[in-house]
Amino acid sequence: MHITLPSGKKIPCEPGVSILQSLREEGIYLTSSCGGKGTCGKCRIIIQSGSADIQSTMKLSREEIDKGYAIACKTYPAEDLVIDMPKESMLTVDGKVATGKAEDLLKLFRTIGADLSPLTERLTLQLPPPTLDDNISDLERLKRELSSKGLGCLRVPFRFLLGLSQNARKENWKITLSTIHSEDCHEIINVFPGQHPVPQYGIAIDIGTTTIVVYLIDLSKGILVDVASTYNSQIRFGDDVITRIVHATEHHELKNINRAVISDINELVLLLAENHTVRLDSIDCLVISGNTTMTHFFLGLDPSSIREEPYIPTANIFPLSYAGELGITLNPSIPVYSFPCVSSYVGGDIVSGILATRMHEKEEISIFIDIGTNGEIVIGNAEWLMSVACSAGPCFEGSGIRHGMRATNGAIEGVKIDPETREVEIRVIGDEARPMGICGSGMIDAIAEMFIAGILNQKGKLQPETSERIRTGEDGTEFVIYYGDGKDIVLSEPDIENIVRAKAAIYAGFTTLLLEAGFSFDDVHRIYIAGGFGKFLDVEKAVIIGMLPELPKEKFEYMGNTSVTGAYLFLLSRKMRAEAEEIARKMTYLELSISRSFMDEYMSGLFIPHTNIDAFPVVKSLMKQ
Amino acid sequence: MHITLPSGKKIPCEPGVSILQSLREEGIYLTSSCGGKGTCGKCRIIIQSGSADIQSTMKLSREEIDKGYAIACKTYPAEDLVIDMPKESMLTVDGKVATGKAEDLLKLFRTIGADLSPLTERLTLQLPPPTLDDNISDLERLKRELSSKGLGCLRVPFRFLLGLSQNARKENWKITLSTIHSEDCHEIINVFPGQHPVPQYGIAIDIGTTTIVVYLIDLSKGILVDVASTYNSQIRFGDDVITRIVHATEHHELKNINRAVISDINELVLLLAENHTVRLDSIDCLVISGNTTMTHFFLGLDPSSIREEPYIPTANIFPLSYAGELGITLNPSIPVYSFPCVSSYVGGDIVSGILATRMHEKEEISIFIDIGTNGEIVIGNAEWLMSVACSAGPCFEGSGIRHGMRATNGAIEGVKIDPETREVEIRVIGDEARPMGICGSGMIDAIAEMFIAGILNQKGKLQPETSERIRTGEDGTEFVIYYGDGKDIVLSEPDIENIVRAKAAIYAGFTTLLLEAGFSFDDVHRIYIAGGFGKFLDVEKAVIIGMLPELPKEKFEYMGNTSVTGAYLFLLSRKMRAEAEEIARKMTYLELSISRSFMDEYMSGLFIPHTNIDAFPVVKSLMKQ
Repeated sequence: MHITLPSGKKIPCEPGVSILQSLREEGIYLTSSCGGKGTCGKCRIIIQSGSADIQSTMKLSREEIDKGYAIACKTYPAEDLVIDMPKESMLTVDGKVATGKAEDLLKLFRTIGADLSPLTERLTLQLPPPTLDDNISDLERLKRELSSKGLGCLRVPFRFLLGLSQNARKENWKITLSTIHSEDCHEIINVFPGQHPVPQYGIAIDIGTTTIVVYLIDLSKGILVDVASTYNSQIRFGDDVITRIVHATEHHELKNINRAVISDINELVLLLAENHTVRLDSIDCLVISGNTTMTHFFLGLDPSSIREEPYIPTANIFPLSYAGELGITLNPSIPVYSFPCVSSYVGGDIVSGILATRMHEKEEISIFIDIGTNGEIVIGNAEWLMSVACSAGPCFEGSGIRHGMRATNGAIEGVKIDPETREVEIRVIGDEARPMGICGSGMIDAIAEMFIAGILNQKGKLQPETSERIRTGEDGTEFVIYYGDGKDIVLSEPDIENIVRAKAAIYAGFTTLLLEAGFSFDDVHRIYIAGGFGKFLDVEKAVIIGMLPELPKEKFEYMGNTSVTGAYLFLLSRKMRAEAEEIARKMTYLELSISRSFMDEYMSGLFIPHTNIDAFPVVKSLMKQ
Repeated sequence: MHITLPSGKKIPCEPGVSILQSLREEGIYLTSSCGGKGTCGKCRIIIQSGSADIQSTMKLSREEIDKGYAIACKTYPAEDLVIDMPKESMLTVDGKVATGKAEDLLKLFRTIGADLSPLTERLTLQLPPPTLDDNISDLERLKRELSSKGLGCLRVPFRFLLGLSQNARKENWKITLSTIHSEDCHEIINVFPGQHPVPQYGIAIDIGTTTIVVYLIDLSKGILVDVASTYNSQIRFGDDVITRIVHATEHHELKNINRAVISDINELVLLLAENHTVRLDSIDCLVISGNTTMTHFFLGLDPSSIREEPYIPTANIFPLSYAGELGITLNPSIPVYSFPCVSSYVGGDIVSGILATRMHEKEEISIFIDIGTNGEIVIGNAEWLMSVACSAGPCFEGSGIRHGMRATNGAIEGVKIDPETREVEIRVIGDEARPMGICGSGMIDAIAEMFIAGILNQKGKLQPETSERIRTGEDGTEFVIYYGDGKDIVLSEPDIENIVRAKAAIYAGFTTLLLEAGFSFDDVHRIYIAGGFGKFLDVEKAVIIGMLPELPKEKFEYMGNTSVTGAYLFLLSRKMRAEAEEIARKMTYLELSISRSFMDEYMSGLFIPHTNIDAFPVVKSLMKQ
């Protein structure tokens, strides 16, 4: 049996194997945030001819079903099929996004003034051939050459001894070593016969609870080549870290949760390498940045104590590991560095974020906030750093929101509503004519605009009389942001409730942390905002909904995904790696779960913008208008 | 189909699988120096009932065939069989030998005055349980405890992080680490919950070209528990190192040659562990000592450049490797230390030997000679060491000699011939009533006694008129040393030729080395002799045949297998390990293959005792008698 793809290519299939699985076996990956359980509805295909056993249509509208839409993970072919794959279902590299980012990153790296000194280094050596008078062994010859050049000592892991004799002789005693610095010594991670300084690539990865972002980086130039991202397939074990820890501990699924993230990473890395014809043996290093639980899952470490008082991780500063021992399908000897963490709930992604903002080297007090599945907030300066974590939920990354999606091509990232006509105007990432969903910045925009236009009240309820776009949908009352051909994009009241809860947790985190640190918002010189919102976050809109404090606009700086930016810096510079460890060591952690004032602040934040409207004078005046 | 063993136990078998293989699958190991090719004839069994497909009887006499003897590797069952296994076929641990050796070794270790500081150390730590106020990670807690005790830093290879969280909590934060010292740091090689200082074992291995000897050592007390030995199954790829290198290089058999020695070692170690009910996870460390080629084969390193001018090994000082990466079936994380080598033809076994003799710390000049498959000779003192290698062949280890065997139970180790009556008296290792073969010391005795009794002439030819024991056998003229029931033990003229060539190479090595170093035999304070001769080597007899120089008897010291003795010392003491590296660094090597005087000396040595009879005045006078 065969499935014919849009390209005309035929791939084999079987009645008992889902279409998602058959596609995967051919190297074609569909978005699948639930990991194939039929609950996210993202792996859509359109069956153009042939019949299939469709086991679930739960996530499809009647109209979509009529048009032949099906969920690939729950559809089993009954005969030869011809299918189409809508663009929004395809897992692809974000080629377009990368170009802009690449320049910004390089600029950032130059601003810092660090040397380009990637964690792996290529050294080409011309050894003198042995003679009866100079008959030391191959290994000693190599070490002697390095030390005679003042390059220090050389550690050769046993496995590299195996090919040394042949590699040294293949190109007349010219040999290139790929090495890392470990305990003041060069440690070999790969050996090439002859001169082989380039190509040399590295991989920087942000493992978010909801989203995984992978950067392919040219280490010789410090250039971001491309980006790929996907939902973390661990989502099938729960949306948040706690649920996943329960799965790992009580359902003995640690190995499966670990494999889920490793296979996501393998897929994205292979996709990037293939797209840019990068040979896998020219990838020399991986750096991963993630929260403490994600880092534990990535490494396969038991996370059970993270969940239980006194909340202890196995490690905060992780020993170096190698691709082979983690199941990463690259050269098994390349190093995998994990960002150091601070505590069970302030992880490597936050340390990475601080590294990217540079607030750890400034005199003035700054605040850093990373809005992902959790919201972590750090206050401090060059002298001290203090952090909290508040459980915001994954809605800004698209999860738990009916038409939510990550900030990739096709996502509505900006929404404007004319206060007079209540006409809606949208901006879509990649300028796609047809949006596929709405990402975090779009949600914030939409809620702020609806609120100001009077469509939404302070309690987060839609006012049906105010707009024809308000209707009753599957999840209750909803607002249509975009009328699509067969697929409208809406925000429902449950969606809005999710967003309000998230923004309340974040604002409560700010105020509690400031209180504990003994400062007020006025003492804060700058607020760095990170998160998977894409290129833009309209800070004024985030203030209107009460997520951010009402401060002069110039104090805010939206930084995008600082976790992966920090990983990029770490990969390119040994100095940055040392700074990251210093940040982790210096940062203190305040446990909010035992803070009464946090709970009070959170409850007060469940209104738009806030119960204490006087903290938002500008919004107050806008409301009056 | 079944084979019934002498014990009454029935084991499964199949027509296509040799009896040797079927026994092996049940954990019953027969001696098999050719590795199952039917050429050594050592894996004898006796078929008592049932019929079998016997594919070779080449190594059996008609009498033996009549009695039901068969070669297990070339015999395939055709129906249910009942078999007997003669004692000489069984590969067993040398329990009896060990008891004596254990005392000698411990005495030697005490004489040296080194502390008992095994290469792996057990550390039991009681950690303070974490609290909300003391909430550092498990790893940091462990490191903090170690450093607060002044025990220095701790390196945790990634794999030990995996179980750390559970191991720490299992016995209420008491934990035992098994560690090695590596670059001034403790490196974890195993973790046990709770208090677990003992049992702790180590393995010292001598990998000879012909024979492999394995010591099981109780690291906590420094006691040799038991010894096991076998022929190196690499013999099927050639008797000497050069033939095996050709096999590895030109026939691409490196992997198979490597596997042969690894599987020999695995079998012997498992046998020892089983015999002494030692749990495999209580074995903490392996040390191997072998010549340069054997070390390369053991590690799987390409040996091709060892054979070609300018004779370069991949390494002389080997990086630490781990059991897992070598295919050793113990805890994959335990360290495997390989003795440092000096050059392509003076290896770790010689460095180990020097370590055992202690000549590297003496003022006076000593000579060390190790007679294995090669003969290596070292001269020097605390200031300098100079070495040569001369190809002696494996005859003293039993290979290439019709009834030759290793110095284990059942071997004739001493021979006396009454010069008058020409009656023969033998001494057998283990006082066995029925000898199974003759070992190196027995051969030397036999030839010296035959020579003195006039049975053998100076050219190594038997004189048939002198004894009724001289007869014509399968290999030509032979002398019957022992009349057995169905199996006589003989030395044939080709056997004697082999032994004469070996002793000539050894004596030529002595004289050439002395010449080059600018000394004479009179300057030498002591001659240490090593080799697989068992407990005894009658030095006077070795002088009579012209293998050793005629010097006062008290100058000679027979040391047995110094390679494994040195490995024992290395395993028990970090100081010994440092000394071994110092010995390897200090020793110079003289290439005999380009020495004309060595060739001349060798040719002169092909007589008994020597062409230059005046160098052996005592032998000369004995001959006159």
